[in-house]
Amino acid sequence: MASVLVLNGPNLNRLGLREPAIYGDRTYDDLVALCHATAAELNLDVDVRQTNDEAEMIGWVHAAADEGNPVIINAGAWTHTSIALRDAVAMVSAPVVEVHISNVHAREEFRHHSYLSAVATGVIVGLGFEGYVAALRFVS
Amino acid sequence: MASVLVLNGPNLNRLGLREPAIYGDRTYDDLVALCHATAAELNLDVDVRQTNDEAEMIGWVHAAADEGNPVIINAGAWTHTSIALRDAVAMVSAPVVEVHISNVHAREEFRHHSYLSAVATGVIVGLGFEGYVAALRFVS
Amino acid sequence: MASVLVLNGPNLNRLGLREPAIYGDRTYDDLVALCHATAAELNLDVDVRQTNDEAEMIGWVHAAADEGNPVIINAGAWTHTSIALRDAVAMVSAPVVEVHISNVHAREEFRHHSYLSAVATGVIVGLGFEGYVAALRFVS
Amino acid sequence: MASVLVLNGPNLNRLGLREPAIYGDRTYDDLVALCHATAAELNLDVDVRQTNDEAEMIGWVHAAADEGNPVIINAGAWTHTSIALRDAVAMVSAPVVEVHISNVHAREEFRHHSYLSAVATGVIVGLGFEGYVAALRFVS
Amino acid sequence: MASVLVLNGPNLNRLGLREPAIYGDRTYDDLVALCHATAAELNLDVDVRQTNDEAEMIGWVHAAADEGNPVIINAGAWTHTSIALRDAVAMVSAPVVEVHISNVHAREEFRHHSYLSAVATGVIVGLGFEGYVAALRFVS
Amino acid sequence: MASVLVLNGPNLNRLGLREPAIYGDRTYDDLVALCHATAAELNLDVDVRQTNDEAEMIGWVHAAADEGNPVIINAGAWTHTSIALRDAVAMVSAPVVEVHISNVHAREEFRHHSYLSAVATGVIVGLGFEGYVAALRFVS
Amino acid sequence: MASVLVLNGPNLNRLGLREPAIYGDRTYDDLVALCHATAAELNLDVDVRQTNDEAEMIGWVHAAADEGNPVIINAGAWTHTSIALRDAVAMVSAPVVEVHISNVHAREEFRHHSYLSAVATGVIVGLGFEGYVAALRFVS
Amino acid sequence: MASVLVLNGPNLNRLGLREPAIYGDRTYDDLVALCHATAAELNLDVDVRQTNDEAEMIGWVHAAADEGNPVIINAGAWTHTSIALRDAVAMVSAPVVEVHISNVHAREEFRHHSYLSAVATGVIVGLGFEGYVAALRFVS
Amino acid sequence: MASVLVLNGPNLNRLGLREPAIYGDRTYDDLVALCHATAAELNLDVDVRQTNDEAEMIGWVHAAADEGNPVIINAGAWTHTSIALRDAVAMVSAPVVEVHISNVHAREEFRHHSYLSAVATGVIVGLGFEGYVAALRFVS
Amino acid sequence: MASVLVLNGPNLNRLGLREPAIYGDRTYDDLVALCHATAAELNLDVDVRQTNDEAEMIGWVHAAADEGNPVIINAGAWTHTSIALRDAVAMVSAPVVEVHISNVHAREEFRHHSYLSAVATGVIVGLGFEGYVAALRFVS
Amino acid sequence: MASVLVLNGPNLNRLGLREPAIYGDRTYDDLVALCHATAAELNLDVDVRQTNDEAEMIGWVHAAADEGNPVIINAGAWTHTSIALRDAVAMVSAPVVEVHISNVHAREEFRHHSYLSAVATGVIVGLGFEGYVAALRFVS
Amino acid sequence: MASVLVLNGPNLNRLGLREPAIYGDRTYDDLVALCHATAAELNLDVDVRQTNDEAEMIGWVHAAADEGNPVIINAGAWTHTSIALRDAVAMVSAPVVEVHISNVHAREEFRHHSYLSAVATGVIVGLGFEGYVAALRFVS
Repeated sequence: MASVLVLNGPNLNRLGLREPAIYGDRTYDDLVALCHATAAELNLDVDVRQTNDEAEMIGWVHAAADEGNPVIINAGAWTHTSIALRDAVAMVSAPVVEVHISNVHAREEFRHHSYLSAVATGVIVGLGFEGYVAALRFVS
Repeated sequence: MASVLVLNGPNLNRLGLREPAIYGDRTYDDLVALCHATAAELNLDVDVRQTNDEAEMIGWVHAAADEGNPVIINAGAWTHTSIALRDAVAMVSAPVVEVHISNVHAREEFRHHSYLSAVATGVIVGLGFEGYVAALRFVS
Repeated sequence: MASVLVLNGPNLNRLGLREPAIYGDRTYDDLVALCHATAAELNLDVDVRQTNDEAEMIGWVHAAADEGNPVIINAGAWTHTSIALRDAVAMVSAPVVEVHISNVHAREEFRHHSYLSAVATGVIVGLGFEGYVAALRFVS
Repeated sequence: MASVLVLNGPNLNRLGLREPAIYGDRTYDDLVALCHATAAELNLDVDVRQTNDEAEMIGWVHAAADEGNPVIINAGAWTHTSIALRDAVAMVSAPVVEVHISNVHAREEFRHHSYLSAVATGVIVGLGFEGYVAALRFVS
Repeated sequence: MASVLVLNGPNLNRLGLREPAIYGDRTYDDLVALCHATAAELNLDVDVRQTNDEAEMIGWVHAAADEGNPVIINAGAWTHTSIALRDAVAMVSAPVVEVHISNVHAREEFRHHSYLSAVATGVIVGLGFEGYVAALRFVS
Repeated sequence: MASVLVLNGPNLNRLGLREPAIYGDRTYDDLVALCHATAAELNLDVDVRQTNDEAEMIGWVHAAADEGNPVIINAGAWTHTSIALRDAVAMVSAPVVEVHISNVHAREEFRHHSYLSAVATGVIVGLGFEGYVAALRFVS
Repeated sequence: MASVLVLNGPNLNRLGLREPAIYGDRTYDDLVALCHATAAELNLDVDVRQTNDEAEMIGWVHAAADEGNPVIINAGAWTHTSIALRDAVAMVSAPVVEVHISNVHAREEFRHHSYLSAVATGVIVGLGFEGYVAALRFVS
Repeated sequence: MASVLVLNGPNLNRLGLREPAIYGDRTYDDLVALCHATAAELNLDVDVRQTNDEAEMIGWVHAAADEGNPVIINAGAWTHTSIALRDAVAMVSAPVVEVHISNVHAREEFRHHSYLSAVATGVIVGLGFEGYVAALRFVS
Repeated sequence: MASVLVLNGPNLNRLGLREPAIYGDRTYDDLVALCHATAAELNLDVDVRQTNDEAEMIGWVHAAADEGNPVIINAGAWTHTSIALRDAVAMVSAPVVEVHISNVHAREEFRHHSYLSAVATGVIVGLGFEGYVAALRFVS
Repeated sequence: MASVLVLNGPNLNRLGLREPAIYGDRTYDDLVALCHATAAELNLDVDVRQTNDEAEMIGWVHAAADEGNPVIINAGAWTHTSIALRDAVAMVSAPVVEVHISNVHAREEFRHHSYLSAVATGVIVGLGFEGYVAALRFVS
Repeated sequence: MASVLVLNGPNLNRLGLREPAIYGDRTYDDLVALCHATAAELNLDVDVRQTNDEAEMIGWVHAAADEGNPVIINAGAWTHTSIALRDAVAMVSAPVVEVHISNVHAREEFRHHSYLSAVATGVIVGLGFEGYVAALRFVS
Repeated sequence: MASVLVLNGPNLNRLGLREPAIYGDRTYDDLVALCHATAAELNLDVDVRQTNDEAEMIGWVHAAADEGNPVIINAGAWTHTSIALRDAVAMVSAPVVEVHISNVHAREEFRHHSYLSAVATGVIVGLGFEGYVAALRFVS
C-alpha cells in the first residue's frame, strides 16, 4: 500500500483560529481527520504533518525523495519565498501536488507567485479542504 | 439533478493531435467520454463543449449564470488574454473551477498569469485529464 | 440627418443583471431606450448595437468608416486588450467617443489602460448611462 | 438653485495663447463665458476659477466639501502629480467631474495617469470646451 | 503540387482604404492578385484568405496542420495579442512565415512584440506586398 | 547596374563552424557564393563583406550612404547593442534590409530587440541563407 | 528651553472632518491641544503649524535649519511627491521626526514611499495622534 | 497588569558588537534592561526575547495571538522577506508595533519594504533604542 | 538690449548655507552678483529671481513667454517633479537654458530625470556657477 | 594555524543524490573529504558543516565573526533569499568566499542574484568541487 | 599653456551630411575650425579629434589621464552604451565636460541615459556647436 | 603541454594607475608576471594579452576555439555590454573561466550582470590577482 506525505507549512496549525473569512472555520484537526478518512476510503497510508520550521519541512521532503513517496504540500507562505523548499521538492520523483486552501489568486499580489509550482506535478487552489481530498485521489 | 457545464476553449479540440509531450496522447473525445463517465458515477448531468470562438464561450457562460449551473472551464490561451471572459465568469454565482491539463507554471512566463483565477472559485493545474474529474467531484 | 452608431461590446447585454454595485440596476434595454430618446431630442438617427463577437464589432466600425458616421463605443473588456479594434477605430474619420459606464480608474489596475483612447476623439468615464447622452450631444 | 464650482489649474489661464494645435484657439475668457452661458441655460449657479497656486486650489476644494457643491475640475498638470489635490477631492461628497480639454491619452505617457480619477465621479477627456458643458449637464 | 495557405487577419481587408502612409495604396484585391501571380510563376497552389474572426483563422491554421500545408500568415493586430493563434500555429509542422506589410518596429511600442514569431519558421517585416512574394518563394 | 552592399557583423565569419543547430552547417564562404550567384541572376553588382570591427562596419555604412547603395545587413550581436551602428544606418537613404539567419525571436530574450529595425526598411528573420536571397531580390 | 516646530502639511487642517475611518474623529484643534499639553509636560516650547502651501512649509523648515530647532513633520501627501521639501529637511541638523497619523503602509501603493524618510532622523507611522506625543518625547 | 511581548529577530543578539555606525554601541543586554526599566515605569509586564529561528518567532507570535498580548516586534531582516511572519502577525488582535533601531529608509533599497507594516498597528523607525520605549508607551 | 530672466527655484536661496560639498560655499548673493557682472560684460539686461513658490515661478515663465525673453532656469527639485512648470516652459519661444549647479547625474537616481529638458533649448549641468555664465553667453 | 569554516546550506547534504546533470555525482561526503585533504595540504584547520536550518547557519557565522575565522560559504538557495544571513556575513571581518558548485548564471533567473556577494570578499561560481579548493587556497 | 583634448565619437565626422533637422547643416570641419578659433581667443592649446573606433577613443582618454589634460567629449552613441569608455573617463583627474550638440532629452528614450555623466565634471546638452565653446571656456 | 590564453579587456592595461581603492596598486605587468610564474609552477604554457579593441579580443577567442585552448577572460566593462563577445566565447569548447579582480557585486548596479557568465564554465570574482591564479589552477 502506497504511503503519502501530507505536509503543511507555517501557520496552518492555526486553521479555524484565523481569518475564517479566508480559511473557513474548520480546524487543523478537522483537516487531519479528513485526510485520514479519505485515505482510508482510498486504501492509502497517509501521514499528515505540520511545521513552522523550514528545516523540518525540508527534511520531510528529503525523506519522501528517498522513499519514493508522493507528496501533498501546502507550504503556506513559504510557497512565495522559499527556493530552498523548491530545491527539495525538485528531488522528489513521485507525484507532488501543491495545495492551497484559499484562492491565492484573489488575494495580495505577492501570493500569486509560487516557487513550488514549476517543480510540482500539479496545483490545486481555492477548493478549501476539498483540495486535499482531490490531491489524495490524484496520487492514489 | 444538478447540471454542470464543462467548457473548453481554443485548440482543445486538437488534444492528442498536438504536442503530446505537453498534453498527452489522449484525444478530446477521450476527455468528453471521461467527463461523461465521471458524471454518471457522480449522478451529475454534464454538458461538455468546446469552441474556438470567444463569443460562443461568453454566451455559454452567460447561460450558466442565468441558470445557476456550476462551470468547469479550461479556457486555454484565453486564460491569459481575455478580460471579456473574466467579466462573464464573474457573473456566475455557482462554483466555477478553472482547469488546465498541463502545468502552466512550468511553461512560458506568459502562461503563468490567469485573468480567470481571481473570479473563479478555485483552480486545478497540471493533473492532466484527472483535473476535470477532480473538478466534477468538487462541484457535485 | 446624421446617423450615429452606438456600439457596445462584450457582456454589456447583461447590464442590470450583473454587479449592480458597479453598473447600476438599469438594463441594456433601458440603455437602448435612453439612447433613442436622446437621439430623438437631438434630431439624430441612432443605431444602438451590442455584440460579444469581436469580428462583428470590427465590421460595424468598418462600416462607420465607410459611411462617415460618428461612433460612440463602449468596448467593454476589449478596451484593454484589442489592438484589432483600435486599428479599426483609427480608420474612422468622423468623431469617435469612447464611453465607460463605471469609473474604470477606480477599479482593477488592468482596466486603467485603453487601447482605444489614443485613437478616439475623446473619452467619457464613470457618468453611468449619462455618458452616452453626453456623447450623443457631442457628436450631434 | 445648486451652485457648481468649475476649477481650473495651472497654465489654463493661457488657453488660446498656447499650443493651439493641442488646445484650440479659444481663450480662457471664452471658456468662462461658455460655462456661464451653459449654466444659465441649465438654471445653475456656477463659479469659474483658475489658479496656478496649488494651495489656493486645495482651499477651493475644501470649501466645496464644506458646502456640498459639485465640482468640475481641470487640474491641468497637477492631475498627474498632486496627491494633495487628490486627498482634497476625496473629501467632496457631491459629484466631481474631472475634465481635460485635450485627449491626454494621445499625448506623452506621463499624461496618461491621473491621481484624481479614482476619487472623482467620472472623467471627460478630449471633447474640448464641450467637456465642460457635458460636465455641467451631468451635475445639474 | 504543394498547396500554400496565405492567411490575413483583422482589418487587412481594408488595405488601400486605410492609412496609405503606412500601408500604401494598393488594395487587398491587389494583394490577392499578386499572390496568385507569384504562385503561378512558382508553380504553387495558393489559397489567399482574410478574416476578422479569430475562430475562423484558428480553424484555417488547424486545417493547414492537418494537411501539412505551409502557411504564410499576416495576423495583423492579433500578432501582438493572441496566444490562441500562437498555439494553433505551433501545431503546424510545415514552414510558417509571418509577414507584416509595414515596418512594425518603427511604429508603436506595442507592435514590437509578436506572439507568433517564436513558433514560426521566420518573419518578414516592412517589405510591403513584396514580403508575401518573398514568403511564397521561401516555402516553394 | 545598381551595386548592393551585403554587410555581416561579428562572428559571422564562423558560420558553419559554430552551433550548427542554430545556424546550419553551411559556411561563410557558402554564403558569399550564394549572394554572388543570386546577384548574377538578378543582374546586380554585389559586394559581400564581414568584420568583427564596429568601426569598419560603420565606415562601410557611411560609404553606402555617400554612394546611394542599398544595404543588406546582418549585424549579428551588434543588432542588440549598437546605437552607433543604428545612427549610421539611419543616414542611408537607399533601402536597407536587416537580415538574421536564425529566428532570433525563438532565442534568448536579449536577442528580441534590434536597434536597427526602426531605421531599416524591413527585416527578414529565420529564413536561413535564403533571407539574403530574398533581401537581394527586394533591393533589386 | 528648547523650541520644537510641529509642521503639518496639506489637508491636515481637515482632521476630524475627513475620512474618520482612516484618521479618527479628533480634529486639528485637538491635535494642537495635545501637542501643547505634551510639550508642557515635557517642559518644551512647541510651535504647531499647518499649511496647504508648500512654499510656506519650506520657509518654516529653513527657519528651523537656521535656528537649530528640532522638527516634527507630517507632510501629508507631499511626503510622497515633494523633493523640494526633502531638500529643505536635509538642511536641518537638529533631529527631524516624520510622523503619519494613519498606517500609510496599509493604504494605496503610492503612499508607501516617502521622499523625507531618508533625510529624517526617524519615522513614526500609524500610531494616530500618539505619534506626535512620541516624537515630542524623542526630541525633548 | 497587561503583559507585553518584545520580540527581536535575527542578528539582534549581536547589538553593540556589530556595525556601531548603524546600530550604536549599546548591547542587546542594554536593550533588555531599558525595556524592563521602561515597563516598570509604565507598570507593564514585559517579556523581551530574541531568536535567530523563524519558527520560534512565529510560535511566540501565535502565543501572543492566543493570549491577547500586545506585541512589539523588531523582526530584523525577516521584515523584508518573511510572509510567514506576516501571516502570524496578522492573527494578533492586540496592538502590534513594528520597530527598527536604524533608519531603514536611509539604507539599501531592499530594506525599504516591510511585509509586516501593513498588518501592524504602526511602525517606529530610526529612533534607536528609544523606539522601543515609545512603542511600550503606546501599547501601555 | 535683450532682457534675460534668470529664475531659481526652491532652496536655492540657501546656497552657501547648505551642503557645501555639493553646492560649494558661494552664496545666492554671489550668484546674483556673478550674473549681473556677466550680463554687464555681455551688454545684457538681466533679472535674477528666486522663489520657493511654484505659482510665482510659473507666473514669471508666463511673463517671459509674453515678452519674448530668453529664460535661464534652475528649477531645483521641481525639475524632477513639476509637469506644471514644464507646461509653462513649453510656451516660451525664446531660448530656454536649464541649469544645474551640481552634477545631478552623480547624485540620487530621482535627480536624473528632468521634466524640463525636453522642452528647453539645452541643459548645462555640473559646471557650478559657471553654468549660469555659459547660459548667459548662449542666449546673448 | 588558522581555522577555516566551510559552511554549506540547504539541500547540499543531498549532493550526488540529486540532479547529477547539475551538481555531478560526487556526494557530500566526497566534498568533506576533499576539503579536509586540501586543508591538510595547505596546513589549515578546517571545519566543514552543513545545515538545512537557517538559525544554525547564522549561529555558525556569528561564531566565525567572534573568533576571526575565515568563512567559505555555499548558502545554497538562501543565497537568493536570506537577508538575515547577509547581515550575519557582514559582521565577519576575516575573508569570506561565497562558493557555488554549479554555474548559477546559466540556470533560472532567480538564481542570478545573491544577497551575500556584496558583503563577501569574493565569489567562485561553476567550478564544481574545485571551487572549494580554490577558496581554501585563497583564505590560507 | 594648457592643452585640451576635444574628442568626438562615432558618426560625428558626418556632421552637416546627416539629419540637418537634428544637427544643423554645419560640418565637422566647421566644428574643428570653431574649436580652434575659440581656443586661440582663450589662449588654449586644443586638439580636436574624431573616431568611429572605440579602442582609439579609449586610448586618447588614457593619454589625457596620463598628461593631466582636460577633456571635452562628445561620445555620440557610445554615451548610452559604453561602460568601457566610462571607466576610461573616470581615470581623468582634470575636468571632463560631456557635450551633445542636439538636445538628447527631446529624442528617443534610449538617448536619455549617459554612462559618462556621473564620472564627468559636467554636461552641456542641446546648445549646438556653442556647447563646445562653452566647454572650452569652462576648462580654460 | 596545454596552452592557456589569459585575455584582458579594456582599461586593464591601466591597472595600478587607476582607482587603487578598487583594483589595488599592483600593475598590469605585475599581473602578467604572476600569471607566468603560476603557469611555470603548474607546467602550463600561458599567453597573457590585453586589448582595448573588441575586434581583437573576438579574434583571440576565435583562435582559442579553433585550437581548443582553455581561456581565462577578464573582459572588463565588455562583460556587461558585449553580446558579440558572448557569442565568441560560446564557441569555445575548452573550459572558460571569467575573472574579475574587484568584487563587481559590491559596485554599481550595472556591473552586476554579465553577458559572459552563462556561456562560461565558471566565474571568479573579487579575489584580486589571486583570481587568475585560481583560474589557472582550474584549467590546468
